Amino acid sequence: MTYTLILLRHGQSEWNEKNLFTGWYDVPLTEKGRAEATRSGTLLTEAGLAPAVLHTSLLKRAIITANLALESADLSWIPVKRNWRLNERHYGALQGKDKAATLAEYGEEQFMEWRRSYDTPPPVLADDSEFSQINDPRYADLGDDAPRTECLKDVLVRMLPYWEDEIKPDLAAHQTVLVTAHGNSLRALVKHLDGISDEDIAGLNIPTGIPLVYELNEDFTPVTRGGQYLDADAAADAIKAVANQGR
Amino acid sequence: MTYTLILLRHGQSEWNEKNLFTGWYDVPLTEKGRAEATRSGTLLTEAGLAPAVLHTSLLKRAIITANLALESADLSWIPVKRNWRLNERHYGALQGKDKAATLAEYGEEQFMEWRRSYDTPPPVLADDSEFSQINDPRYADLGDDAPRTECLKDVLVRMLPYWEDEIKPDLAAHQTVLVTAHGNSLRALVKHLDGISDEDIAGLNIPTGIPLVYELNEDFTPVTRGGQYLDADAAADAIKAVANQGR
Repeated sequence: MTYTLILLRHGQSEWNEKNLFTGWYDVPLTEKGRAEATRSGTLLTEAGLAPAVLHTSLLKRAIITANLALESADLSWIPVKRNWRLNERHYGALQGKDKAATLAEYGEEQFMEWRRSYDTPPPVLADDSEFSQINDPRYADLGDDAPRTECLKDVLVRMLPYWEDEIKPDLAAHQTVLVTAHGNSLRALVKHLDGISDEDIAGLNIPTGIPLVYELNEDFTPVTRGGQYLDADAAADAIKAVANQGR
Repeated sequence: MTYTLILLRHGQSEWNEKNLFTGWYDVPLTEKGRAEATRSGTLLTEAGLAPAVLHTSLLKRAIITANLALESADLSWIPVKRNWRLNERHYGALQGKDKAATLAEYGEEQFMEWRRSYDTPPPVLADDSEFSQINDPRYADLGDDAPRTECLKDVLVRMLPYWEDEIKPDLAAHQTVLVTAHGNSLRALVKHLDGISDEDIAGLNIPTGIPLVYELNEDFTPVTRGGQYLDADAAADAIKAVANQGR
């Protein structure tokens, strides 16, 4: 008896395309991103995978990706749960900034520390910034816990309770679960699942729009470390492109 | 203090367009239906209405209508609950049949009795019919309660517990609720809300893709009987067209 956990990073967003730091800013998918999402549903069908429950973040690029994937897999009817704990990393004062310009302004070392260090968050985002979500009604329940910046460690700390309390029980009850989320919330989950060190997680990139399938043992450890992308060639190409962002 | 209940019948489906009885058969929207759904979200925004929770049936024409409406209203993130109790009336042996051919074969009296009588269901649909949902995994939990035909009274009886147990508490907690469903599940709800008699409900038609807004008192009775369509002119035209189906 194993469980099947399907991780799906949203398709290309308008700010992926423009090479801006996005974080919690709620950016729509591009047409390419919508096509990626629809294709990811076809990949699920071709692999014979039928998730019984969907979990998404509260950001439209993940939600619409899930909507389109499930529509093309003819599974629009499955139950869905949305939670801020699956949101992208809050990128603090970098939200809305151009990645190449940030690299040029702050230099390689600072840039890579903000992007890939495990426990150094960027500077906080001011509440009166046009890129702040502090007054967004969808986060009203968070109160003072609403983040103003996050490092990957922060993401892991706020994501793990959701994994434990919501996703694990759904795997146990329904066997196959789809999680549609973001580069960094999924990196945090993969770090936990595969037991990746704080240093090595810096080198792990997750491409957009390609389902990553983990078979899990009954204790929720992966049968195969790293899982399996449903389109391994496309994933390998896309991982290289993500690693080169800002260059 | 009042509550706001927004009822939305799905946009045109492929079988609305072909003039077939649909019921529980899971038919996609047409391009016109998708456009109606997107426009209904714009109507919500223009009216200043922001539902806090969505309820849908398990049928893709209602689910995709909700997805598109919420995307155009920029509310994709709100929580969603899906339930078979909001499904269209099960049309029994009529599912998949042409409405005009059925009228010609059985005559005006029988046709109108099946379509509009409150308590006479069509003949049951055989479990081995290509139009049966008896083995569909989404209804596995229903077991022997899965309908094989329904009259409007049957729909009201299975819909009311959902109204009482799920929608009313969400109105009380969140004030504004969107229900995206079907001609007959919404007729059943409107019959209950407005206290329409078993006879008079025969004359009530609900058009596709136009939000119908009820302000409700704290005891969930309508402030204004019949509610208000957000595009009253389009609703009046569409209601006439529905009444003439099969002609």
